[in-house]
Amino acid sequence: MLITLDYTNMMAEAVGAANGLREEELAGLTARTREIHEQIRLRRAAGELPFFDLPHDPAIVAEMTRLAKDVQEQFDNLVVLGIGGSALGTTAIFNALRYGHNLMDASQRLGLPRLFVLDNVDPDGFAAHLALCDPARTGFLVISKSGTTVETSSQFLVARQWVAASVGERYREHFILITDPKSGILRELADREGYRSCAIPAGVGGRFSVFTPVGLLPLACVGVDIAGLLKGAADCARFVCHDDLMTNPAYLNAVLQYLAYRRGLRITVLMPYSDRLRYLADWFRQLWAESLGKQFATDGSVVHVGPTPVNALGTTDQHSQVQLYMEGPFDKVVTFLVVDEFDQELPLPEYPAAPQMAYLAGHSLAELISIEQQATATALTRNQRANCALHLPRVTAESVGALVYMLEVQTLFAGGLFEVDPLDQPGVEEGKLFTYALMGRKGYEAQARQLAEQKGVLKPRVLACG
Amino acid sequence: MLITLDYTNMMAEAVGAANGLREEELAGLTARTREIHEQIRLRRAAGELPFFDLPHDPAIVAEMTRLAKDVQEQFDNLVVLGIGGSALGTTAIFNALRYGHNLMDASQRLGLPRLFVLDNVDPDGFAAHLALCDPARTGFLVISKSGTTVETSSQFLVARQWVAASVGERYREHFILITDPKSGILRELADREGYRSCAIPAGVGGRFSVFTPVGLLPLACVGVDIAGLLKGAADCARFVCHDDLMTNPAYLNAVLQYLAYRRGLRITVLMPYSDRLRYLADWFRQLWAESLGKQFATDGSVVHVGPTPVNALGTTDQHSQVQLYMEGPFDKVVTFLVVDEFDQELPLPEYPAAPQMAYLAGHSLAELISIEQQATATALTRNQRANCALHLPRVTAESVGALVYMLEVQTLFAGGLFEVDPLDQPGVEEGKLFTYALMGRKGYEAQARQLAEQKGVLKPRVLACG
Repeated sequence: MLITLDYTNMMAEAVGAANGLREEELAGLTARTREIHEQIRLRRAAGELPFFDLPHDPAIVAEMTRLAKDVQEQFDNLVVLGIGGSALGTTAIFNALRYGHNLMDASQRLGLPRLFVLDNVDPDGFAAHLALCDPARTGFLVISKSGTTVETSSQFLVARQWVAASVGERYREHFILITDPKSGILRELADREGYRSCAIPAGVGGRFSVFTPVGLLPLACVGVDIAGLLKGAADCARFVCHDDLMTNPAYLNAVLQYLAYRRGLRITVLMPYSDRLRYLADWFRQLWAESLGKQFATDGSVVHVGPTPVNALGTTDQHSQVQLYMEGPFDKVVTFLVVDEFDQELPLPEYPAAPQMAYLAGHSLAELISIEQQATATALTRNQRANCALHLPRVTAESVGALVYMLEVQTLFAGGLFEVDPLDQPGVEEGKLFTYALMGRKGYEAQARQLAEQKGVLKPRVLACG
Repeated sequence: MLITLDYTNMMAEAVGAANGLREEELAGLTARTREIHEQIRLRRAAGELPFFDLPHDPAIVAEMTRLAKDVQEQFDNLVVLGIGGSALGTTAIFNALRYGHNLMDASQRLGLPRLFVLDNVDPDGFAAHLALCDPARTGFLVISKSGTTVETSSQFLVARQWVAASVGERYREHFILITDPKSGILRELADREGYRSCAIPAGVGGRFSVFTPVGLLPLACVGVDIAGLLKGAADCARFVCHDDLMTNPAYLNAVLQYLAYRRGLRITVLMPYSDRLRYLADWFRQLWAESLGKQFATDGSVVHVGPTPVNALGTTDQHSQVQLYMEGPFDKVVTFLVVDEFDQELPLPEYPAAPQMAYLAGHSLAELISIEQQATATALTRNQRANCALHLPRVTAESVGALVYMLEVQTLFAGGLFEVDPLDQPGVEEGKLFTYALMGRKGYEAQARQLAEQKGVLKPRVLACG
């Protein structure tokens, strides 16, 4: 068993008619499910959805493992320069399967390099990470499909100079470019300047790219079982790529979320009860928000649609967010990520001097976190708050690979339900153009004028402390 | 200057009448502001809001610094055992003012101990952190106001055994208990068993406690300038504790958020453009959600009110969440946290082989992140998305202290606007009782029956992959 969806508490019988769903509503989407599935099938057949087939690539594991071996010998630190889909999947899986890796000393981490995923252009943050590393023993993965990503380009310029200052012309050996197989500046540089490179298969968008070299290479470098990841995804594929709504957990979960949204539950909370799965929620935030948050429907009508994903962490956020989830507006669905069996147990010993803690003795931390999840779900349900759970039997490469794949399929299918294109992100273009204009880049004079106009028209309203 | 609030883009003239505010609306709350301020003043005078006065305690800095010196000599690792308000403020300020500390080697961190804030009971996560530490050189701060927090008690039991197995009866020297000055099991243990301890002043709730030993002791241990923190807070107090709405940034920001909420913008995004300020958003999430997310108004009526706080990070989330913010439903206010001057500049050098990157040369990472924030704000505004900014001149102990204090005052005041009690959290009680019942604790048989009943009634709906 890879992943189990428990949606008991999504139904009206559990949380009441105002916030819960009826069986007829689910059944009512059976035909629509088949239609969307057929559209997906046709697009897959036309080669438009290659992410579906990534787990079935027979060559990729050997190729990444070979390259990773070189990296492991060459470097003590590996730095990913990338943002969004070039970073979030790696961070999520790294934390799940090599938890605490960067804090270990070299022997604890079996001589494998530390991995820093730097997905920002904060100069203080970037400099602080460089200061941790010896440039002569540090490698970089520069990841951008288009090669034009301004953040990644800027990081690359700084890192290139930093390495070159230490090792001279051999700096090129410290960079591996992961980019489009044919076009873009990073591909040109790889060809012309002799950098090593990997290809992101054509047609795979950033947020669906973790099973390409984007995720597989850095993960292999730190010892993640990437064959297991892909096996879990491939196994999962057998259960989430058919058109029977009531037996396809990816489609069913999309339908549950969609119906809840239509009922006004517009916030999707993903709440792992697991430190290791914590950043899966961050990865999912991008997948769900960028894929479904859209101004236009596919028929061109203006819809301004999209659930807002929120990351939470159990038990931690029971002491931060659950007060709101329990008592605030009825506007959320909470999806728990539950680990059925932890690697550690950590029994709770007796402490005779503290009789008030006696009720804990004989239990374990593993039992406690499980009990707290059940208690929170029960309390939410009794307060008419819709919630469901995705169970992983254990946190393994296979189960994490399966979960990632299932959520990707769920999201793509949800695009059909919401009637939007889940593969584009037109809303971020305008900000990019303004960035270019503010950098004084040629060709963006119109945006520069718009900026100046807006500044001229609006009355600044500013209030200072001090 | 400590903190500046720029609310230009909250107004109708910037984002349109549907999502923006009019000056008259703000002015319309002038009298209400005075009323709420007067209520606060009376409660302060009655000693009910001691958090206001924490920055003015003359003795605390010396006391914490003295204790921190002992901790620094005794330990290489300091572990905070606490959850919610016992953890989030420390994590936020630690990351802001000692960024990257735990990744540094001992000489880089000036011989100061590493600091791990463990705010969960995940056995895998907890065990992984213990495995990083030598018990003979590891100290623990056990933080719980009541002493009854089940997560903290459980962590304490595990850690106590772990240290005792290494150092025997001297294990007590490895634990400092931070708890109520008079009552509770941790206070009893301190008195009876001879643990060192600190007091959390009476009447200071967890989410308002970072300027007590809860935050100040661990922060002092890792070299944070706690005097600067308190000075910033105290300086800020002079600007946020008066009743003139249009010149009090804490009150005004609360009013902006409140009016936006009433208009349907029910999601409050806090988006630092700074790696160092990243976890300030997590700390704020608790403050805002637990204080304002309430079922009952103070007059006893059922309201189910409360904005949902969301953490984001610039520029990172431009490639994850901004698509949704730009095009999705009109249900959000984005508050940027902006750093006006970074400590590092990181100029972008030329790379003649990459003419497509030539437009970057001559700029810097510091300039880029600033420009991207402006570009995002402009694009949001042109898409009629309400947004505002809190500016810090630099990230210093003073400015961070001021920001924390301002947001605490803003939240308390917002409780008055939303007409709820910002100091309680009744909604988390039920989950605690179910936890006790599932642990088999005596006295919770009624909850155990409720659990069994619910389980008996609901049809389980479970669907598996594999």
